[in-house]
Parts: sequence; C-alpha cells; structure tokens
Amino acid sequence: MSRADGMNYAPKGKSRPVVAPGEFVFAATGLDHGHINGQCNGLVEAGAELRWVYDRDAEKVRQFQEKYPGVRVASSLEKILDDPEVRLVAAAAVPSERGPLGVRVMQAGKDYFTDKTPFTSLAQLEQARRTVAETGRKYMVYFSERLHVECAVAAGDLIAQGAVGKVIHVTGFGPHRLGDPAKRPDWFYRKKNYGGILTDIGSHQCEQFMYYAGCRDATVRYARVANHNHPVYPELEDFGEAALVGDNGASFYFRVDWFTPDGLRNWGDGRTFIIGTDGYIELRKYVDIGAEGKGEHLILVDAKGEHRMDLRGKVGFPFFGQLIRDCLDRSETAMTQEHAFKAAELCLQSQAMAEDAGGV
Amino acid sequence: MSRADGMNYAPKGKSRPVVAPGEFVFAATGLDHGHINGQCNGLVEAGAELRWVYDRDAEKVRQFQEKYPGVRVASSLEKILDDPEVRLVAAAAVPSERGPLGVRVMQAGKDYFTDKTPFTSLAQLEQARRTVAETGRKYMVYFSERLHVECAVAAGDLIAQGAVGKVIHVTGFGPHRLGDPAKRPDWFYRKKNYGGILTDIGSHQCEQFMYYAGCRDATVRYARVANHNHPVYPELEDFGEAALVGDNGASFYFRVDWFTPDGLRNWGDGRTFIIGTDGYIELRKYVDIGAEGKGEHLILVDAKGEHRMDLRGKVGFPFFGQLIRDCLDRSETAMTQEHAFKAAELCLQSQAMAEDAGGV
Repeated sequence: MSRADGMNYAPKGKSRPVVAPGEFVFAATGLDHGHINGQCNGLVEAGAELRWVYDRDAEKVRQFQEKYPGVRVASSLEKILDDPEVRLVAAAAVPSERGPLGVRVMQAGKDYFTDKTPFTSLAQLEQARRTVAETGRKYMVYFSERLHVECAVAAGDLIAQGAVGKVIHVTGFGPHRLGDPAKRPDWFYRKKNYGGILTDIGSHQCEQFMYYAGCRDATVRYARVANHNHPVYPELEDFGEAALVGDNGASFYFRVDWFTPDGLRNWGDGRTFIIGTDGYIELRKYVDIGAEGKGEHLILVDAKGEHRMDLRGKVGFPFFGQLIRDCLDRSETAMTQEHAFKAAELCLQSQAMAEDAGGV
Repeated sequence: MSRADGMNYAPKGKSRPVVAPGEFVFAATGLDHGHINGQCNGLVEAGAELRWVYDRDAEKVRQFQEKYPGVRVASSLEKILDDPEVRLVAAAAVPSERGPLGVRVMQAGKDYFTDKTPFTSLAQLEQARRTVAETGRKYMVYFSERLHVECAVAAGDLIAQGAVGKVIHVTGFGPHRLGDPAKRPDWFYRKKNYGGILTDIGSHQCEQFMYYAGCRDATVRYARVANHNHPVYPELEDFGEAALVGDNGASFYFRVDWFTPDGLRNWGDGRTFIIGTDGYIELRKYVDIGAEGKGEHLILVDAKGEHRMDLRGKVGFPFFGQLIRDCLDRSETAMTQEHAFKAAELCLQSQAMAEDAGGV
C-alpha cells in the first residue's frame, strides 16, 4: 500500500464475502486514477469476481493484470458491456469522462461504481439523474475518504448510537501531496478535466458532512479557491475552502489543498472533526503525529471522559459488501442514490460559487 | 490554576523582570471576569508592581487580595486614576463596559490593558480610536489564547523564522465549557453585555489570524451564529463561525462554541492550524488527548519531517514584559495599537454579518 501518494492509496481490508463465488461478477475500466485499485480491492474482498479489465492504455492494463492475475483483458468497453453476467462496472476515468461513461454503462443495463468526483459539471449530474430514472441502475461513488477508512466508518456507527448527541458541526481537512508535478498526468492540470479542487477532492468532504450530520440537503454559503504557489500550472487550484449549512441546521466547513509537506510520512494529514451537543469526535485518518504514528485513530470526548481508539484492522469496510447486496437485492443500504447525487451537487455548487467570487 | 473553566484560566509563567522594583506601577479594576488574574500574573512576573485594586463588589476585592496580598484597596476608581505613579490600569470588566472604562482610563493619562473582547460595538471601538489619538495612551488587549499560551507564542516565532514558508491559511477552534449555567453571572447571558459569541470568544480568533498570517487588514466573507441547544437562555449564542480573507490573500476560518463535553479534563480543546506553502503547524493548546495529556504541544511538519514539541515551561510569555517596556518607552513591540483595534473590528464585523444573516 502506498501511503506517500493519495492517488495510489488502495487500502486492503478484511475479506468478508457477502456472496458465493461467481455470484457477483464485475469489470474494471477507466484506469486513469489509481483509486481503481481501492475500488476493486473492496469489491473482491466482499466476494465479487473481477472478470474483465479494459483500458485504451495497454501499459495501465498490464500493471492492473499484475495486481489482479485472474482478470481477463477485454478488447473494448463493448466486450464488457455485452457480457450479461457482468452486473457492475467499476471505473476511475479522467474526472470529466466519469459522468458520460456512467450513462453508457447504465444504459447497457449495468450498475456503475465510479471513483470520486463523480462529475465535473452540473449538466453531467442531471444527465446521470435522468439515466438512473430511466434505467433503474445505480450510479455509486467511491468516496474513499469515508468508505475506505476504518475510523471514518466507526465514526458513523458512533454517531448513530448517539455518542455525541445531535451533530451540530463538521470540519473536514483534506490536504493532499502534489508530489513530483511532472509525474502527474496532463489532465490533472486541466480545469475542464479535473473540474476544480472543490469539485475534485472537495467531493469527499461534502459527502462526509451529509453523512455525519444526517442531512438530506444543504446550502453552500461560502466558497473560495486559489492558486497560492503554483504559477507554472495556472489552471491548478492548490487551495479550496467552503462553508455549508445543512437542512437540519448543522453546519460544515472544509479545506482542501495540495500543500502536504515532503516531510510528512504519508500523502496527507486528513482530519474530520464532528461536534455534537453531547460530545465530539476527531478522526486522524492516515497519520497521527506524535502518537505511534499510524492513522485510523478516533478520539471521542463525551460526558464520561476522553476516549482514544486505534481502529486499524478492527472495523473493516462494510460499504463494499453492502454495495454488492444492494446491486443484487436492489436495496440502498450502502448509500442511497440521492445521497451520492446530492454530495456531488454540493461540491459542484461550491466550485461554482468560488468561481463566481473570482476563482483562480 | 483552574483548567476546568476557561473563565478562571490564569497561567503562571516564568518570572522575567524587565524593570526594577517599583519602576512600573499598575492597578487592577473590573474584576468581573477571572481573566484579570492572568493579566496581573503576567505583569507581575515581568516585574510590574500591582499597587491598587478597585471594584464595586467587596467580595471580589477580598478574593483578589487573597491572591495578591500586597495590593491596596482603593475606595474608588478615581483614587487609582489620581495616583500619578500608576502607569497602567488592567481591567476585566463586563464586556460592554470595557470600552467606556478604557476611554476614562486613557483620559486620565494612563495606559489601559483590558481583557478581551475589548469592545461590544463598533461605536465603542471608534470612541477608543479617537481617545488614543487624542491622548497618546495605549488601549491594549489580553488576547490570552495567544499571549498566554506557550505553544502559541512559539508558533509566531517559528513562522517569523520561515518554518512553514508563506502562511496561506489559518483555522482556529475555540470550544469552551459552559459549566454549571447557574454559576455564570447574569451579564454572561445578556447579548447587550457580552456582545455575541463572535465578538466575545471570537475576538481571540481574529487576532491570531492577523498575527500568524501577517495581515494588516481582512474582509469578513462569511459569519454565522446559532443557539443549538440552550433554549433556556435565548440570548446565548452557543455556536459561532466565520471565514475571513486577509489583505495578503491568506484566509481564515474559525469556530467557537460552548459545547466542551463534561468528560474533557480541561475547559476546551483549543486548536490552531497554520498552513504554509512549505509546512504546517498544529497547536494543541490546553490538552492533547492520547499523548501524555498535557497541552502546550506544537506539531510542525515541514520538508524535513514531522516534529512534535512539548513546550510547557519552555517558552514563557514575552508579551507582558514587552507591554511594560512599550508603556515606558512608548514603543509598539508587544502589539501595535492598530493590530489590537483591527482584531477587535474584525470580530465585531463578523458578529454583525452573522446577525444580518439571521442571528439567534
């Protein structure tokens, strides 16, 4: 597991199959973002069969085959879409292609599981909403900063159990390491492709707010982006922030940036702070400086005291098994379609507000 | 030292006299807020002579005398103001009285050192600005969450040394414990007296942003207050947040609240996060859950690595000695007058924006 670069962060969890072998077949395509490995790991560990891979880039396919030796190489996307046993297509395409690809997958009768950000424009979101309504298929999103982080999963459980009372505020920090700028693909620096920093890495944040605060909708009240220190890449937003208020009165602030210092052991010191009427939670997701240094730490302070939990290897990632069951049972346990779409909408609205305010 | 209740948090630092005995005489009045003890401790440790105390409340005076046995009790404020050897008057009056008291002190030819928040209205601020211009006296403010916290002092030194490059963002969390609501004085719950949560405990925050980011001015872009869980006290704002952008492009978000859970060992888990182009700093000011539990921890991550510093007892509080020298030398080393006034202005503007947006 690479902890130095968020783009290649692909956690491996406990294997907890929810289906019999061969019962849930899926395919992978759109290998542009390394998150595809995390998506596939999660599904395979939950019992899914990874049958096909397709990508225009033969080198990416070769590397993918090394990670998943049993996978067959499809000569085209159609080959995958024509296999009636394929129930779901997982993809981490260039962000601007994720929406159109999902529409095509759903129109072929398959569920779709895309890397975040799911869209780079509100028009793509609307098209996906229509296609979901027409086809009855799922457009699910790999919001890895919650779904693939054990302490983030545990936080949801604790809140549901009433551990902090009513949630009134969430703060999210999503710093990322740029790394060697030359090793990033071209699309990473093109605004029309990556959609802006609030759309891209901000999408994790909006989803977490809605989930932890129990909102169904929210209003973007403030948003701002900047290019503070990367003039060579004029379309790169290296900093973004936004403030939202949920339909239940809870509020949210998040900051995302590309300023993780070289000296940090991992790609970013991601944090989430959840303030409730009766207690608060802090997640030190990937690193906990000064403690034993590993992440997956959840701190809960409530009326009884201060509690620190090291959750590495103790929680697992229930999302993937739930997603497989949802696809088979047509249920919405892992995540409702509306939740995924609303999270996408809020990050796109934040981005639009920041650009209206001046942008980069 | 009480760590359970922020109102009575009065740190004692190293004694580092900057004057000879008797060279700098000051008086205390306005004992309404426990911060007066922190103010006096800081000055006495820097060599000042606490000569007088005056307050309408005899019981408060008695308790004050117990802490400072050598102090003389003045029968009126005039008695203090008439003593030509008194150079400075320290006070922690009810917030709404701080501005008018300061004007009176300055008009009597003394410098003034008030607890934060220095004002509860922009009109008071303007009156103080005028009086400073007319009298040449100082209106200094005890922004204790930076001036009386060793790791907060050290953060300023590190930034000045270039440890994190150019500061682009600051986040401040100022949670406070309400404690037994019945033990709070009446004025604590009256908006006209305490000024609102962004004016009151938010004043620390705006000051820290300007100091760490090196701003001379800033624009309030977003502000919000709420009473989430204290309907019995309709004028209490138990939550507040605001976002600002500095005149140098650095930005700021802060949250303040009265939701510190009973189980936390101290009155609030105050934090400051400072993001620079080359590194970042986190301050765990009063408590560091899961470490050995004490506060005064500074975490610095830069190009070279992760650094954790336990600064308790290692930095001291240079502000007080600098303030004494400033009063004697008519210099502005501790804090410029404009910095203090601008910090006050920004929290008052934040409060006004939050009220315009709906308020409580």
